[in-house]
Amino acid sequence: MFDFTFHNPTKIIFGAGKESLIGTELNAAGINRVLLVYGRNSVVKSGLLDRVMASLKTGNIACNQYGGVDSNPLLAHTREGVDLAKQEKVEAILAVGGGSVLDEAKAIAVGALADEDVWQFFIGREVERALPVFTILTLAATGSEMNGNAVITNAETRQKYSISSPHVYPKVSILNPELTHSVPLNYTAYSGVDAIAHVIEGYFTKQPGTHLQDRLVEGIIKTVIETTDLIMVEPDHARARASFMWTATLALNGLTPAGIGEYSFPCHMIEHALSAIYNVPHGAGLSIVMPAWMRWYLSKNPSQFERFAKEIFGLDSAEAGIGALEQWFVTINTPVRLHEVKIPATDIEAIAANAEGLARQWGVSGLYTRETIAEILRLAV
Amino acid sequence: MFDFTFHNPTKIIFGAGKESLIGTELNAAGINRVLLVYGRNSVVKSGLLDRVMASLKTGNIACNQYGGVDSNPLLAHTREGVDLAKQEKVEAILAVGGGSVLDEAKAIAVGALADEDVWQFFIGREVERALPVFTILTLAATGSEMNGNAVITNAETRQKYSISSPHVYPKVSILNPELTHSVPLNYTAYSGVDAIAHVIEGYFTKQPGTHLQDRLVEGIIKTVIETTDLIMVEPDHARARASFMWTATLALNGLTPAGIGEYSFPCHMIEHALSAIYNVPHGAGLSIVMPAWMRWYLSKNPSQFERFAKEIFGLDSAEAGIGALEQWFVTINTPVRLHEVKIPATDIEAIAANAEGLARQWGVSGLYTRETIAEILRLAV
Repeated sequence: MFDFTFHNPTKIIFGAGKESLIGTELNAAGINRVLLVYGRNSVVKSGLLDRVMASLKTGNIACNQYGGVDSNPLLAHTREGVDLAKQEKVEAILAVGGGSVLDEAKAIAVGALADEDVWQFFIGREVERALPVFTILTLAATGSEMNGNAVITNAETRQKYSISSPHVYPKVSILNPELTHSVPLNYTAYSGVDAIAHVIEGYFTKQPGTHLQDRLVEGIIKTVIETTDLIMVEPDHARARASFMWTATLALNGLTPAGIGEYSFPCHMIEHALSAIYNVPHGAGLSIVMPAWMRWYLSKNPSQFERFAKEIFGLDSAEAGIGALEQWFVTINTPVRLHEVKIPATDIEAIAANAEGLARQWGVSGLYTRETIAEILRLAV
Repeated sequence: MFDFTFHNPTKIIFGAGKESLIGTELNAAGINRVLLVYGRNSVVKSGLLDRVMASLKTGNIACNQYGGVDSNPLLAHTREGVDLAKQEKVEAILAVGGGSVLDEAKAIAVGALADEDVWQFFIGREVERALPVFTILTLAATGSEMNGNAVITNAETRQKYSISSPHVYPKVSILNPELTHSVPLNYTAYSGVDAIAHVIEGYFTKQPGTHLQDRLVEGIIKTVIETTDLIMVEPDHARARASFMWTATLALNGLTPAGIGEYSFPCHMIEHALSAIYNVPHGAGLSIVMPAWMRWYLSKNPSQFERFAKEIFGLDSAEAGIGALEQWFVTINTPVRLHEVKIPATDIEAIAANAEGLARQWGVSGLYTRETIAEILRLAV
């Protein structure tokens, strides 16, 4: 066990129909005007936006709508949102959507109270304040509903960078698992991969000897696999969708790394470079990078890979454990090789060059150089 | 999965020497005067109180000390603390000690802002406000450092009753595992039993089908057993003491029951009756009640008892799992029969009569009548 601080003040309201409580929650927080951020038309067509607007109306909360968030949310769209938030003097940002919408909402919340351009916070400036963020989640995957992280892509510079700040933990996140029943199976599979990636990187890159945290991670991975399998057969399996949703939240809310000391996010780092260039879905990128990275990293922590094989798949060898995870990705139809998402092996150097910048920003450039990153990516050819 | 609200805003600062940060944390919260609540002389003799006072002095925080909290904290002493808090116009309560000290501090925090007698809140009145509570924990067991619960004993009426309120979640809890190295082995064992009891009751009394929560519980139980065993051999085993401490916190911070729906705390209920009359340590009472209750309850949820046997002990039968847990209690020297704490079988009726009152208060008087409680207790003769 290592020293840590754990402080996650987000209030989670979980259950069918709970989005109707958003007006009450905003009232309780003394909010009178929000910027409602959303993505594509699905929240309009499903009727969700109408239900949210009705709840806001009941609470006498004024609202400016701001749609059009991309699945890898873009800086240019974020900047426009910041301008709108400032112009309309909103008091809070209400995100209605998946992790991308939540991330852009957090970035707007930061930019709305800043004099400088919001991108400054993604390239090093510390976040010191933000408008309060409220969320209604429609896709379980990123954990953004209960953490202080946000990832934004700068299309001009091809940089997919992040912030991490206590100021952007959502005040309230409403999780209605029924809203996720209509998530297409490919995106559900990507989400499962993402949730596993969130816990697996700390599990393998931390020091040994924190068994409680190992067990929490194993419980999360087993539940993601079990519930994803159920959803693939029956997309509106209520119990599985609900369990999947809460499991994805716990996978990145600070619980599993508390006490494990230093660890790193190499798979996310490489994937960010990959999707910054190619705009592949985050989870699809991860299911390509993760098995490759695991094979590359195996010799650095063999006993933990053996533990993984045994606890998750009941297998006796580390290699078999990695193979079983990769095979599971194949089963749920997520890609495991670069060519499956039409990335030629000749592009590896360019991806590695992009990831190298992230490695410096994330403080892992000792182990992750342009050469080693290319070596990992070649294992995914 | 069932609907739930999860909101645990307590900030945990975990690590050696972290008590020196208390002045800074109180400053950050704008607190100028605290009532420092503690138990016996051990915190004085160990030098902890001096270190805390030094940190308060650095932060220019005025302090009134109030020692003498009992291991089953008493209403009479709580009332005096309330009077002192009102008289000195303190702005927060700072608890330095184990779960009993924290519980009494919470009760004082409620009483200090109330016109009515503090016991009213334990027998039904809703808590609507409380002074902010800060804690420095010296004994891992009750989870009080990260929840809204407090248990107080009314010696006159022999009632050990509790409150549960969002208003008494500690603002900040400092967990220095080194402070627990000197906890005697018998109390460490009681604490391990207590932590297991906190998760096991929901695990067996909830509806089936919430596997994530099952896995979280199993991870906690396995870690409690593993670390307690290490501590019994080497009382200042740093890694085990640290892991034990954080595990005990997670065992009762709202994580494991989130989403499991309705469940009950029958072992705690019966134990509260037992220790209200006999003043046995809470964990000792629990290690007597738990195996008896498990044998009595087995037929109501056999598949979960089978799961428990397999996951925790690698055993194939439910009965063997209960036996293994009981045998583990014997190994760590906690009592498993009433006569071991000098309670004669002839007193069972009196304990059952006391517990019946709690069963009504806790809403489980359908299943737990005076007769069935006596039946359970007879399995511990």
